[in-house]
Amino acid sequence: MLIPIGDITTEAGATIVGAEIAVQRWGEFRGDPNGRNNVLLVEHALTGDSQATDWWCEAIGPGKALDTDKWCVVCTNAIGSCYGSTGPSSKHPDGGTWGSRFPAISIRDMVTAEAAALDALGIGRVHAVLGGSMGGARTLEWTLLYPERVDFALVLAVSARASAWQIGIQTAQITSITQDPAWQGGDYHGTGTTPDAGLAAARRIAHLTYRGELEIDERFGTSPQPGENPLGQFREDGQRFSVQSYLEHQGRKLTERFDAGCYVALTEALNRHDVGRGRGGLNKALHSINVPTMVVGVDTDILYPYHQQEHLSRNLGNLLAMAKLSSPVGHDAFLVEARQMDRILRNFIMLTEQTPSGRDLDATRGVYDI
Amino acid sequence: MLIPIGDITTEAGATIVGAEIAVQRWGEFRGDPNGRNNVLLVEHALTGDSQATDWWCEAIGPGKALDTDKWCVVCTNAIGSCYGSTGPSSKHPDGGTWGSRFPAISIRDMVTAEAAALDALGIGRVHAVLGGSMGGARTLEWTLLYPERVDFALVLAVSARASAWQIGIQTAQITSITQDPAWQGGDYHGTGTTPDAGLAAARRIAHLTYRGELEIDERFGTSPQPGENPLGQFREDGQRFSVQSYLEHQGRKLTERFDAGCYVALTEALNRHDVGRGRGGLNKALHSINVPTMVVGVDTDILYPYHQQEHLSRNLGNLLAMAKLSSPVGHDAFLVEARQMDRILRNFIMLTEQTPSGRDLDATRGVYDI
Repeated sequence: MLIPIGDITTEAGATIVGAEIAVQRWGEFRGDPNGRNNVLLVEHALTGDSQATDWWCEAIGPGKALDTDKWCVVCTNAIGSCYGSTGPSSKHPDGGTWGSRFPAISIRDMVTAEAAALDALGIGRVHAVLGGSMGGARTLEWTLLYPERVDFALVLAVSARASAWQIGIQTAQITSITQDPAWQGGDYHGTGTTPDAGLAAARRIAHLTYRGELEIDERFGTSPQPGENPLGQFREDGQRFSVQSYLEHQGRKLTERFDAGCYVALTEALNRHDVGRGRGGLNKALHSINVPTMVVGVDTDILYPYHQQEHLSRNLGNLLAMAKLSSPVGHDAFLVEARQMDRILRNFIMLTEQTPSGRDLDATRGVYDI
Repeated sequence: MLIPIGDITTEAGATIVGAEIAVQRWGEFRGDPNGRNNVLLVEHALTGDSQATDWWCEAIGPGKALDTDKWCVVCTNAIGSCYGSTGPSSKHPDGGTWGSRFPAISIRDMVTAEAAALDALGIGRVHAVLGGSMGGARTLEWTLLYPERVDFALVLAVSARASAWQIGIQTAQITSITQDPAWQGGDYHGTGTTPDAGLAAARRIAHLTYRGELEIDERFGTSPQPGENPLGQFREDGQRFSVQSYLEHQGRKLTERFDAGCYVALTEALNRHDVGRGRGGLNKALHSINVPTMVVGVDTDILYPYHQQEHLSRNLGNLLAMAKLSSPVGHDAFLVEARQMDRILRNFIMLTEQTPSGRDLDATRGVYDI
């Protein structure tokens, strides 16, 4: 379903006119739209979409950890993406495609737009917001921008702000795309050419930050791609190690399902991720969060190393729990390690049912203050 | 000094005609050129050169750990490089530049060529071979190709073979260069254009694998480059975070001192690094090494993670010692952490003076066998 949310003014002051947000829902809504209810708001990662039961199929469904017989799971597509919500590849109200007219957005802008979509749906408050990676960044911002609308939060495989290393590797990806001659300043839509080579190159780099070297090496090692000889007298592009073929496949797959301009927009938003901006710094911002928040990291994550989740756990104002995924897979473990994630999600849901929410605590404090 | 070594046949069967190797030396030679002597053969990393007293200035010199008052330090430029030894940017005997005529080389080819250069100098044996990263790979291959010529070895920040992750990230760098239109199939020399953009992009990616995210983040965090605003209404290439400016500077610096074709050739050699090839597999090859070998790794190295040095230590036939650099710097710590490296190098030298060499052990075994 597409929800019109009108004009959105970004954190940096630009306007996205006539914005829309794609939303999907599983399970029946129960409770008070502005009070206690059963909504679990799930936040997707960089190239994800609102079809959460696809990319988190082991986690969401009847009888699963996010049990749709009990909970109403809602997932929106981030503004800037290409899966229904308004982004660089969307039609502009004035004609043509947004392209380079689409402004730079921040994680906060995604949450602002998402909150507007929930408003339009009449959902004033949710039981929990959950997400990993870019979805984790959005979850954190929910607890800062709209603490009164979030009872609990689960933040997976992310940090309080982009690290310089992340900005570096993410910028390498953006540059791969913008230096592709087919990029045309971001206005390639409708020209008949698309910066597929740049987007594929970006994805190959990104994939090596999503997947742990232990897992990739266990799968491919130094094996040649069948029928090819990467050890010949001269280096040839068509004579590859298996891992090269695998990464090229990952790159090609993304060009078939994702828009390069949207990839740049969302990656730029990750570069700008910083919960401390305008809030007196990182730790002061984290300390101000009263939403009970569970933090999860992955032991082999090189993109968002575990020390970044430890940093969150030390500084969050209301830490609910902390868990570590042990996996050779690296960053993507929150999507891949279904068995461990099942335990973590069930623990999180159980804790949310046994713990006073941030709002309850505020109410209690209010009583004592009198 | 340039040493002609004649024609070199590569592991894959191609020929490099009329090859030369650049060699430098510090300290006086003492001892038997084919027996015990005071030669320390130092092996440089990917973009290094034979001027070891530049890039390892804290380690080599009078009174330093590799004390040139006592030891004769020798350093050669790897074949395939652009610092004097024959490589893609060298003049071809038939005219013009080698360019795409330069074959793919392996780490073993580098060692074969280096051994030929030592032959030409009359050095039949060395007290020790030492090197990190690509230099560590060369050191390992010395102990396998010419165990009778090496008394001791020090292997830093490397693995027994390329991991699939390394092949992936290194191929991303090669592709950055070869997809630059100025690459011209590798025959850009003399055309007036050089694939600087591709080489700089490769270096920016590489640099993020050489430097730990802790160190980069401590230095740059999310600071904007002075005078620029990376948080404006639209993403602009000229409005950068400090870390982007830093990485662009690293890329530009490399284009001013290194040849793109040589970068591709040496990176391809790293992709082919595998001490197990043709030797019955990795662990069998390692177990066969009787040269007493010290292994050193860095706790925060994501390019050659410490578990790879632990793997070496478990499987080397004659482990002399093991040490870990503790550093936020990552892979480059063996070049940067001068104080820790000083202790490690002094310990290594002391051990080599107190321990029977592989050759001594063989001689002993010979006596016992009678």
